[in-house]
Amino acid sequence: MTTTYNFSAGPATLPDSVLDEIRDSLLRRDGRPTVLEIGHNTSAFGAVMAEVDDLLRELGDVPDDFEILHVHGGARMQFSAVPLNLLGRSPGAHAYYVETGYFAQQARLEASRYGRVERLASSEETRFDRIPDIDASRIDPGAAYVHITSNNTVYGTQWRRFPETGDVPLVVDATSDILSRVVDMSRVGLLYAGVQKNLGPPAMAVVFIRRSLLGHARRDTPLLLDYATYAKHGSRYNTPNMFVLDVMRLVLRWMKAEGGVAALEARNEQKARCLYDVIDASEFYAGAARPEHRSAMNVTFHLPSPELTALFVGEAHASGLFALGGHRLVGGVRASLYNAMPHQGAQALAAFMQHFEESHG
Amino acid sequence: MTTTYNFSAGPATLPDSVLDEIRDSLLRRDGRPTVLEIGHNTSAFGAVMAEVDDLLRELGDVPDDFEILHVHGGARMQFSAVPLNLLGRSPGAHAYYVETGYFAQQARLEASRYGRVERLASSEETRFDRIPDIDASRIDPGAAYVHITSNNTVYGTQWRRFPETGDVPLVVDATSDILSRVVDMSRVGLLYAGVQKNLGPPAMAVVFIRRSLLGHARRDTPLLLDYATYAKHGSRYNTPNMFVLDVMRLVLRWMKAEGGVAALEARNEQKARCLYDVIDASEFYAGAARPEHRSAMNVTFHLPSPELTALFVGEAHASGLFALGGHRLVGGVRASLYNAMPHQGAQALAAFMQHFEESHG
Repeated sequence: MTTTYNFSAGPATLPDSVLDEIRDSLLRRDGRPTVLEIGHNTSAFGAVMAEVDDLLRELGDVPDDFEILHVHGGARMQFSAVPLNLLGRSPGAHAYYVETGYFAQQARLEASRYGRVERLASSEETRFDRIPDIDASRIDPGAAYVHITSNNTVYGTQWRRFPETGDVPLVVDATSDILSRVVDMSRVGLLYAGVQKNLGPPAMAVVFIRRSLLGHARRDTPLLLDYATYAKHGSRYNTPNMFVLDVMRLVLRWMKAEGGVAALEARNEQKARCLYDVIDASEFYAGAARPEHRSAMNVTFHLPSPELTALFVGEAHASGLFALGGHRLVGGVRASLYNAMPHQGAQALAAFMQHFEESHG
Repeated sequence: MTTTYNFSAGPATLPDSVLDEIRDSLLRRDGRPTVLEIGHNTSAFGAVMAEVDDLLRELGDVPDDFEILHVHGGARMQFSAVPLNLLGRSPGAHAYYVETGYFAQQARLEASRYGRVERLASSEETRFDRIPDIDASRIDPGAAYVHITSNNTVYGTQWRRFPETGDVPLVVDATSDILSRVVDMSRVGLLYAGVQKNLGPPAMAVVFIRRSLLGHARRDTPLLLDYATYAKHGSRYNTPNMFVLDVMRLVLRWMKAEGGVAALEARNEQKARCLYDVIDASEFYAGAARPEHRSAMNVTFHLPSPELTALFVGEAHASGLFALGGHRLVGGVRASLYNAMPHQGAQALAAFMQHFEESHG
C-alpha cells in the first residue's frame, strides 16, 4: 500500500506509533477495564494526569509559578473564559487584542461582551497576510491583558517572537503551535491551546496560567469556566476529557523520545522550508503570507485559478496526500505540518507540487 | 481467563462488541485517516452526527419539536447552562429544584448564582434514601422551570415516574439513566445527560430541548454555554467531542440491535432485581434506598461494618467483580448496572454476595 499523508489543519494526524499504542494497549481489556471504562478519581487515571502535567512542564519549559489546567471545550470556550477570569483583575481596566486572523477576531468579539476591549493592532486590511507591528507605547500599563494568537491556522502566519508587554500580562492562544517550538514563557501570563493539532484528539484545552492571575474571576463565572475551580481540584472537579488526556500522554512521551521541543522545532522548520522553497522558486504557486511572518505549521498558497486549485487538491488526494484544501474563508491550498507530520510527508508534497506545476503550469 | 465485570458508576463498562469495533475499525487507518485525525466539517463526520441524532431521536422517542444538542463538558457544565439559558425566559420568575442527592444539590447551588431559585422538596433529612413527595400546588405557574435528577447515582434512588408540572417546563438531569428506560417525553421541557454512563466515554453531554425554550439566554451567556449556538450550528460551531460521538454512534447501534430501550429496560429491571432479591432475603446486607424508589441503575447497600465492606470490595475485585466501592460521601457498596452490563454480571455479583454472606455473615 502507498504511504499516505494527512495534512488536515486539525483534528490532525497522530504519530503512527501513538495510534498503534491506543489500539493495542489503551483500548484492550486484558482482564481489566480499559481507560474508557474507569472513574476519573482512580489511581490509574491519577497517574495519567500526573505524567501529562510533568511532561507538559518539562517539554514546554513551564515555570514553577504556573498552574497547568485541563479545561473543557477547546480554544473557543477560552475566548469566554479568558475575559471572565482576567477582566476583573483590575476593575475598569481594559484588554487589548491583536487581530491577526479569524480566530483572533472571534476572541476579541467574545471578550467585548464582558468589558472594555480594544483592538491594539490588526492586519485585516491586508487580508491577514502578516503579523502587524505593535506600538507598545499605546499599551496602558494598568490594562488587564494583551491577547495574541501565536499561529494563524487559516492564513498561515505566525508570531516569530512574542511582543514585549511590560507588566501587562500577555495572553497567548497557542492552539496551532503549542509545543512545536521553544517559547520564552517569561513573557507570558497565560497560554492556552485547544489540543487537536499538536497534542491529541479534540474537545479540550490546556491552560498554563501564572498563579498570580488566578482568583479574579467575575462573580457570575460558570464554575467550569473559572480557572480557580480547575486549579483547586487538579482539573478533576468533574470528569475531565479522559481519553484525550490518555492520548496526550502518549503524544507527549513520543515528543520526548523524538528529542523534545527544540528537536521538533528544527524538524518543523525544515518541513516548512521544503514547501516554501518550491513556492519561492515558482511563478505558478503564490504564497499567501509575507515571508517574514510565514508559519511553520500551516503553509498556505494559491494557484492561478480556482479550477486549478480544485484539480490540485483532487489529484493530491488521489496520490495519498489528504486534506489540502484551504480554509473556506480564503480558499487556495493549506498544508498543515504539525509535529506528527513526518519529514517525508513534506517532501512528498513538495515533489507533487513540482510535478503538478510541470503538468499544468 | 475468568470473565470479569466492571461495576464502575461512570465512566462505565462498554459493550464488548463496541470496544472491539473501536479498536478494529474506528482506529485503524487502512490507507485513510482515522476518526481521530479528520476535521469536524468533513462529510465523513457529518454522517456520524446525523446518525447519532437519528438514533437518539428514535431510541429516546424524542418528539419532533425538540432539538438534539451535543455540548461540551458533561452534566456539571449544564448546571450553569440551564439557568443561564432558561431563567431569562420569564424575567423575575424563579426556578424550582428538587433535591434528591449530591448532584441535585450542586445543580441548585450553581443555579442560585444566576437568579431566584427555590428548593421545592428535599430528602436530605433522611439522607436521600427516597424521592420526596412534591406539593404541585406550590409550583408558581409563571416559574421558569422545575429541575429534577432522574436517577441519583450516589444514593441509588430513581424517579419511577416524572412529576406533573403543568405548564412549567420540567428540566431533567438524566445523566445516569438516559436511554435505560422508556420515558414520557411529553412531560419534559429539557432533558440533559452527561454521556459517560449509558452512552459512551466522558466529557460531553446531550441535551434534548423543546425549540420553544431556545433563544432566552442571558445576554452575557458564554457562547458555548448558549444552547442557541449549538442549535444554529448543528453542534459544530466549534470542534465537538468527536471521539465520544463516534463511540456513541456504536453504542446507539448496539442498543438498537439489542431491541431498543424497552428491551433494555426490561433487562435492566431484571438485573437490578437479581441483587435486590439477595438484599431483601438477607439480614446481612441492608439496602440504602427505600424499596419504592430504588434505582435500576445503581444498587446501593451496606454491610454490618466498614471492615466487612472493605473485605467485600477487595474479595469481589479478586474474583473479577470490579469497582464496587460506594461513593465516598456514603460508603458501603454500589453496583452500577447500566445498559452495557450483561445479565451474567448481575448474576455473578448476586452469587458472590450470597457466598460472602455465608462465609462472613
